[in-house]
Amino acid sequence: MKIDTFDLSGARASRWNLDAVIDGLRVSREAAHNIRHHGRIRELPSREALAGIVSDLSAVLFPTHYGRPNLTDESIDYFVGDTLNTTLNRLTEQVRRGLLFSAPADAAGEATLAERADDITRAFAAGLPAIRALLVSDVQAAFAGDPAATSVAEIMLCYPGTIAILYHRLAHSLHQLGAPFLARLIADIAHSLTGIDIHPGARIGASFFIDHGTGVVIGETAILGQRVRLYQAVTLGAKRFPADASGALVKGIPRHPIVEDDVVIYAGATVLGRITIGAGSTVGGNVWLTQSVPPGSNVSQAQMRHDDCAEAKPR
Amino acid sequence: MKIDTFDLSGARASRWNLDAVIDGLRVSREAAHNIRHHGRIRELPSREALAGIVSDLSAVLFPTHYGRPNLTDESIDYFVGDTLNTTLNRLTEQVRRGLLFSAPADAAGEATLAERADDITRAFAAGLPAIRALLVSDVQAAFAGDPAATSVAEIMLCYPGTIAILYHRLAHSLHQLGAPFLARLIADIAHSLTGIDIHPGARIGASFFIDHGTGVVIGETAILGQRVRLYQAVTLGAKRFPADASGALVKGIPRHPIVEDDVVIYAGATVLGRITIGAGSTVGGNVWLTQSVPPGSNVSQAQMRHDDCAEAKPR
Amino acid sequence: MKIDTFDLSGARASRWNLDAVIDGLRVSREAAHNIRHHGRIRELPSREALAGIVSDLSAVLFPTHYGRPNLTDESIDYFVGDTLNTTLNRLTEQVRRGLLFSAPADAAGEATLAERADDITRAFAAGLPAIRALLVSDVQAAFAGDPAATSVAEIMLCYPGTIAILYHRLAHSLHQLGAPFLARLIADIAHSLTGIDIHPGARIGASFFIDHGTGVVIGETAILGQRVRLYQAVTLGAKRFPADASGALVKGIPRHPIVEDDVVIYAGATVLGRITIGAGSTVGGNVWLTQSVPPGSNVSQAQMRHDDCAEAKPR
Amino acid sequence: MKIDTFDLSGARASRWNLDAVIDGLRVSREAAHNIRHHGRIRELPSREALAGIVSDLSAVLFPTHYGRPNLTDESIDYFVGDTLNTTLNRLTEQVRRGLLFSAPADAAGEATLAERADDITRAFAAGLPAIRALLVSDVQAAFAGDPAATSVAEIMLCYPGTIAILYHRLAHSLHQLGAPFLARLIADIAHSLTGIDIHPGARIGASFFIDHGTGVVIGETAILGQRVRLYQAVTLGAKRFPADASGALVKGIPRHPIVEDDVVIYAGATVLGRITIGAGSTVGGNVWLTQSVPPGSNVSQAQMRHDDCAEAKPR
Amino acid sequence: MKIDTFDLSGARASRWNLDAVIDGLRVSREAAHNIRHHGRIRELPSREALAGIVSDLSAVLFPTHYGRPNLTDESIDYFVGDTLNTTLNRLTEQVRRGLLFSAPADAAGEATLAERADDITRAFAAGLPAIRALLVSDVQAAFAGDPAATSVAEIMLCYPGTIAILYHRLAHSLHQLGAPFLARLIADIAHSLTGIDIHPGARIGASFFIDHGTGVVIGETAILGQRVRLYQAVTLGAKRFPADASGALVKGIPRHPIVEDDVVIYAGATVLGRITIGAGSTVGGNVWLTQSVPPGSNVSQAQMRHDDCAEAKPR
Amino acid sequence: MKIDTFDLSGARASRWNLDAVIDGLRVSREAAHNIRHHGRIRELPSREALAGIVSDLSAVLFPTHYGRPNLTDESIDYFVGDTLNTTLNRLTEQVRRGLLFSAPADAAGEATLAERADDITRAFAAGLPAIRALLVSDVQAAFAGDPAATSVAEIMLCYPGTIAILYHRLAHSLHQLGAPFLARLIADIAHSLTGIDIHPGARIGASFFIDHGTGVVIGETAILGQRVRLYQAVTLGAKRFPADASGALVKGIPRHPIVEDDVVIYAGATVLGRITIGAGSTVGGNVWLTQSVPPGSNVSQAQMRHDDCAEAKPR
Repeated sequence: MKIDTFDLSGARASRWNLDAVIDGLRVSREAAHNIRHHGRIRELPSREALAGIVSDLSAVLFPTHYGRPNLTDESIDYFVGDTLNTTLNRLTEQVRRGLLFSAPADAAGEATLAERADDITRAFAAGLPAIRALLVSDVQAAFAGDPAATSVAEIMLCYPGTIAILYHRLAHSLHQLGAPFLARLIADIAHSLTGIDIHPGARIGASFFIDHGTGVVIGETAILGQRVRLYQAVTLGAKRFPADASGALVKGIPRHPIVEDDVVIYAGATVLGRITIGAGSTVGGNVWLTQSVPPGSNVSQAQMRHDDCAEAKPR
Repeated sequence: MKIDTFDLSGARASRWNLDAVIDGLRVSREAAHNIRHHGRIRELPSREALAGIVSDLSAVLFPTHYGRPNLTDESIDYFVGDTLNTTLNRLTEQVRRGLLFSAPADAAGEATLAERADDITRAFAAGLPAIRALLVSDVQAAFAGDPAATSVAEIMLCYPGTIAILYHRLAHSLHQLGAPFLARLIADIAHSLTGIDIHPGARIGASFFIDHGTGVVIGETAILGQRVRLYQAVTLGAKRFPADASGALVKGIPRHPIVEDDVVIYAGATVLGRITIGAGSTVGGNVWLTQSVPPGSNVSQAQMRHDDCAEAKPR
Repeated sequence: MKIDTFDLSGARASRWNLDAVIDGLRVSREAAHNIRHHGRIRELPSREALAGIVSDLSAVLFPTHYGRPNLTDESIDYFVGDTLNTTLNRLTEQVRRGLLFSAPADAAGEATLAERADDITRAFAAGLPAIRALLVSDVQAAFAGDPAATSVAEIMLCYPGTIAILYHRLAHSLHQLGAPFLARLIADIAHSLTGIDIHPGARIGASFFIDHGTGVVIGETAILGQRVRLYQAVTLGAKRFPADASGALVKGIPRHPIVEDDVVIYAGATVLGRITIGAGSTVGGNVWLTQSVPPGSNVSQAQMRHDDCAEAKPR
Repeated sequence: MKIDTFDLSGARASRWNLDAVIDGLRVSREAAHNIRHHGRIRELPSREALAGIVSDLSAVLFPTHYGRPNLTDESIDYFVGDTLNTTLNRLTEQVRRGLLFSAPADAAGEATLAERADDITRAFAAGLPAIRALLVSDVQAAFAGDPAATSVAEIMLCYPGTIAILYHRLAHSLHQLGAPFLARLIADIAHSLTGIDIHPGARIGASFFIDHGTGVVIGETAILGQRVRLYQAVTLGAKRFPADASGALVKGIPRHPIVEDDVVIYAGATVLGRITIGAGSTVGGNVWLTQSVPPGSNVSQAQMRHDDCAEAKPR
Repeated sequence: MKIDTFDLSGARASRWNLDAVIDGLRVSREAAHNIRHHGRIRELPSREALAGIVSDLSAVLFPTHYGRPNLTDESIDYFVGDTLNTTLNRLTEQVRRGLLFSAPADAAGEATLAERADDITRAFAAGLPAIRALLVSDVQAAFAGDPAATSVAEIMLCYPGTIAILYHRLAHSLHQLGAPFLARLIADIAHSLTGIDIHPGARIGASFFIDHGTGVVIGETAILGQRVRLYQAVTLGAKRFPADASGALVKGIPRHPIVEDDVVIYAGATVLGRITIGAGSTVGGNVWLTQSVPPGSNVSQAQMRHDDCAEAKPR
Repeated sequence: MKIDTFDLSGARASRWNLDAVIDGLRVSREAAHNIRHHGRIRELPSREALAGIVSDLSAVLFPTHYGRPNLTDESIDYFVGDTLNTTLNRLTEQVRRGLLFSAPADAAGEATLAERADDITRAFAAGLPAIRALLVSDVQAAFAGDPAATSVAEIMLCYPGTIAILYHRLAHSLHQLGAPFLARLIADIAHSLTGIDIHPGARIGASFFIDHGTGVVIGETAILGQRVRLYQAVTLGAKRFPADASGALVKGIPRHPIVEDDVVIYAGATVLGRITIGAGSTVGGNVWLTQSVPPGSNVSQAQMRHDDCAEAKPR
């Protein structure tokens, strides 16, 4: 008597030529692995895990907006405390994994990395109240700066700029504390959600507002003062990438703009290189700017000439 | 005998300094809460719930494309009816929550809000067939306007513009009926999915088509006629924001363009202020336009001069 | 005795006027269905299913980055083999559904379509090792081309360009093999995740790198050589759409640029029409280019004149 | 440069001796498969799918108890209709799979099985109103028969007997219509949920009540009249299993009891063989009964003698 | 041009005769609804919701066993507090629903019911520490009473009796506080998980232990002292159900046994009626007991005679 | 301006008296924790994780019945290999946790436990083919022993006895290899699913069959030969529990029956103590047996006298 009544032989047996494809993929992997010496598995940080962690940190910071709307005075600290605890436990594991990829190759063993991850995570937690204060200033700036905004709740829930800045401030903190890989991953999660791409190395002052936001790019070494306002598709980028004698790009040197306090940059403007936009300046839409401008400047496309450019004629 | 065999004391007891962080966050919350008088919990609308509602409304409107592909003549109305009923039940709850944030502070009690939410939801439901007719015109416009489109199904499933317009027409209906908060939330969900940011206040005629779409921004008071076509990164924005005597921005005044019937605006064009683009006009790519143009205009970057601008030379 | 204790009559009975709305929607559907002759249900491809399939294919190609980080030498081929098998089973079903919408209407019966779907899927599987080799070259190009990149793992996990290219190379393979609908759906999933819109028909050489990426558009008939690098908001589009005698757009003719080897195109540049950018050229940011340029060109906004355009003056 | 930074070689490479175990399992499978001739894959019915189907059928029958409690007069038929349609679509697929295992081996092709499955499913659907009427009688019997019952809702939600009978009546209908495999699977799902094991072949009249129920067993050929009441651990079983000349058990012959109308059987009673318990009889707890009794009998353990048996004495 | 390309007409249109079945079900519902006067929807308690609530209450009581094993001294109270708060919020809603079915028909309005639900829930919460103390005594009794038990953790995780008693003590508290419907639902959830059926009305002292447990039934008015031990299939049931003049069963009168302190009842024993088993007695396996026995009794099947009964003879 | 618009003060602030309840629970926990010395967190095995592991092991053993029905010759080993690998990885973690609770308190460090867990898991994996062979004999015994069984697939999917034996054979292997806690947990999962309670220590020969099964209990030191058949509610239990001088139960001594080859025990029979039922014997339903019987015995209730017991008389 037979137990399995399935006959697996026959016509379908080689439906996909699985063995050949799997062999080909193995060969491809091995060609790329031509140098092997680490001798251990390095677990990558998990994008999904980190997305959940950042979402829960948002709930810790703004419990009634991003956590649970029905929290009461007697329950809110329990919620914050329990969410914070579980989130930090998960974060330190991701930080540890990230250190495997950003720490010097000759670093101490895994136990040391776990301790460093705990230290980073503890310092990160200690900084959360200060981050919250900055974020409150950002939300206030959005309310003050957009005539379409009707309530704080709308800014918290409906503005991609709010998400981008919240994620950036968390990512920047991790970047500063020595977890650059995790920081980049958080930045890319925000990028995917909002179309706003802020490198976690960028230093951004209080009361920051980005309206609409799609296509905004802020580079690694950019420095923004307080009360800066940006619109969609603004680039604060590098102008050129110096290479060393061997032709490899030199990493880490300052190459993005400094934007001083109270600057407004309108949609589509492109600001490149280590230039300074003086305090209180306004940069008009679509402007292409590669030189520093003094405080109080009003940089714009020359309107008259552009009216020529944009010819309106009957067809 | 002990029941719990876990020893929770010891070195890990203060792993995260939880109490200190939680205290810091409470202080931060209380600093922001310096004015309190409402005396009740206001439940925020849920972005997740609303995303599900809009997805189900899409299925109600186009059951075989966004609902279930195997519906039959005998089953389709049951599907539409049951999905519509459950969706309206969930929508009215979200509308009610949204009213808490957009209704006048001295509004009547919660019971009244629930009734208003029911009224809005009922009127919204009554308008769905008309919305569907508009959307059919939009899909037809896409098929006619894109040489890469090969079938209606492709436009329904693979075009971000289709999603953006569908969500906008639903959001605009709620906006008109007095649920502006929910409307904004739907618009931002669409923005996140597509990179297209249409304020729910914008009024848009039939047969509207957006191709590619990333970076498109359409402002709150914009008015678009029929058969308008837009490409990626087009902005229909405000030029300036008037402030009142106290320096606060004046909200709600017309400040975005009027685009008449049969206008095409190519990628990257920026159209700002309460200007009118006359019927049948074409606005070229990257054009910066802040003045009205008459019907039949053909607005473009002056090609000759731009060929100068874009210098091609050997390196 | 009564069993059900619910009284469903009364005031709520017509809460939503369901019957009227459902009738209205049916009328709307039937107005659009005025031509009926197929006589069978056509199941649409499922976007959710396809998103899962592409995610699993990514895991097949890069098991430790996108699959499971703890795979070992003894287990990796089992993982690849099992994931590949289940994914191909699911893919062939989606391919079959897609063929219903792209195959000629007079095509043979469903059985034939299922066989064609199996053939396409088998050929697609056979091409995966070659696709993997191309993707490895792309990741190497990113590492070489971005001074902010610190590790290969960062490029695999944190760069939207990596996702966009991975999805494109899979979509392009399906497009070439005769599954254009599925290919478009994959491209739109990548577009939604990254803001990068590459038509699956576009032909792109090895070592391709897109930085930041939001707003990039690459058209159906574009051809890109090896070692091409693009920045955010670059458009490789069509200049005009020829219509036939009846006014319908002519589909499929070459209408997008040819970009030869080793070309770099900076942020916001718009390149339109069937022009050729010669090998080794550089196209500057925000350039508007509609004419071919020879190899080695350096196309840019005329800097001097633009410094005029961007006037900096005290307010 | 290497792309994958994981080194999979080394000590963990043979952590589980996977290859050897997999070989051993393959050998074991092949030993059991020594007869192969079917030449095709037979998909088994899915227990999980069927559990969902029966749960949804329960909702179709009692929409406000097992479906959605907030249904209204205007929405209830839409809910019933849509749930019924999707459930029947899923049921017919499971019926088709079950037929592969219960139909004669030389049955016609798969197309024929699909048609038979549709026929069975359609007939099953047609019988649902009659099944509902029987179930209403069962619930009424529970309310009348248990002094602890306080409401119909309690009987619907808190009595395992209700679930067991509901599942049995559905399973019996499928059994009668020619889908015995599915019927058995439903019976076993109910058994796992309730501890009550009723073979789907058993024929049970209206107003049936099982109290507590754990351990009840009712055999394949049992016949129960109307208004029968059972308590926990009652067995209506077979006394012996006749074997044929070759020693194999003879299947299908009547071998379980006939229980006439208005019989009550108390906890732990064991009734075996093709005997008849006359109408209106009572069988006491723990009774062991293998002979028929006339109508109106009162079968019990002889109390006096049993008081002897149960000796109470000081320790 | 048609938008929907599906043809829903044709052969499949009446696949299931949906309309006829739905009509039949509606007629069946209406026949059962012949008395209607409540005029409002009564939402039933949700079994799924309650199962989650009880699971979370278990975690509140034993955080490291049923909650999270990695809790620390600094985090455990936050976990307990947050879990308790969310669980009580969900419980009060279910209590409110249950009151609709158990409260007098002429009870005050819904607002009053919500207040009563809050009162019951608050009192229930206040009793949790005392319930925990009882449960600790039960676990200790299990450890002391089963030679196979190797650790407290094993008793917490692997003994169905532990679950049955935990659920019963929670259910009994709700029963006492005036939420009998919810209490019954919890009891039936435990019954389904464990095969142990304890009516929430039963009063059970500390240090209670049930071994194996399948088939145990304890009736509504049973009273058990301290340190009682039961084995599988023990029934503490009613002997007869008095009916009133109209023939309806009289509900609520004491009809189940009183079991005093330190009694052990072995597997399969059936104890029926309002009898008393005196303190310190032992009731042997399979004993049928319907009369009170004094303290210190040792009730068993008369072994000698039973050895006759169980005849061992060669076949 | 305030950011959070929620007022959390007021009447609801002490809705649940959370602080008092949490304090009470902490006091209760600390009372039970009066002895603390371990100084580390011991993570408990997870019942949910283990349930998933056992389910996946079932799929490894019988891929087409419990895994995926559409496996083919080219894919089946990949499925088995990948499922086995991931399952063993998860199992070793649970084994490690279990060792914390069953290993001697003075055991070596966590690293050693992890190695022991790996050793146990590797040995367990090596034994899977032999376990599969036993299970095949069990299924064949069911098919041969139940006249209602119509196919092997029915036995695999619809018989609780199959699940109980499968889980037991896995649990017994872990028990033998030194993972008794995990083994007990698997046994209790099977008990909850089937109502059949087999201690993992029990030794059971090939071709074992349990029909119906609810209420079966098999004790820790029971030994069953080959071709044993049991019906529902059979107990193979201990008769008494010897205590040591201090009154504590002596653990681990043989105290359950030995059942030799080819024995059948019918429903409800109770067999207690370290007795031997000789090969080929039959034990009748409801028999109470506490003495050994020689091979070939036919033990039953004395039918004549029992017919007296069960008196049938007119009421």
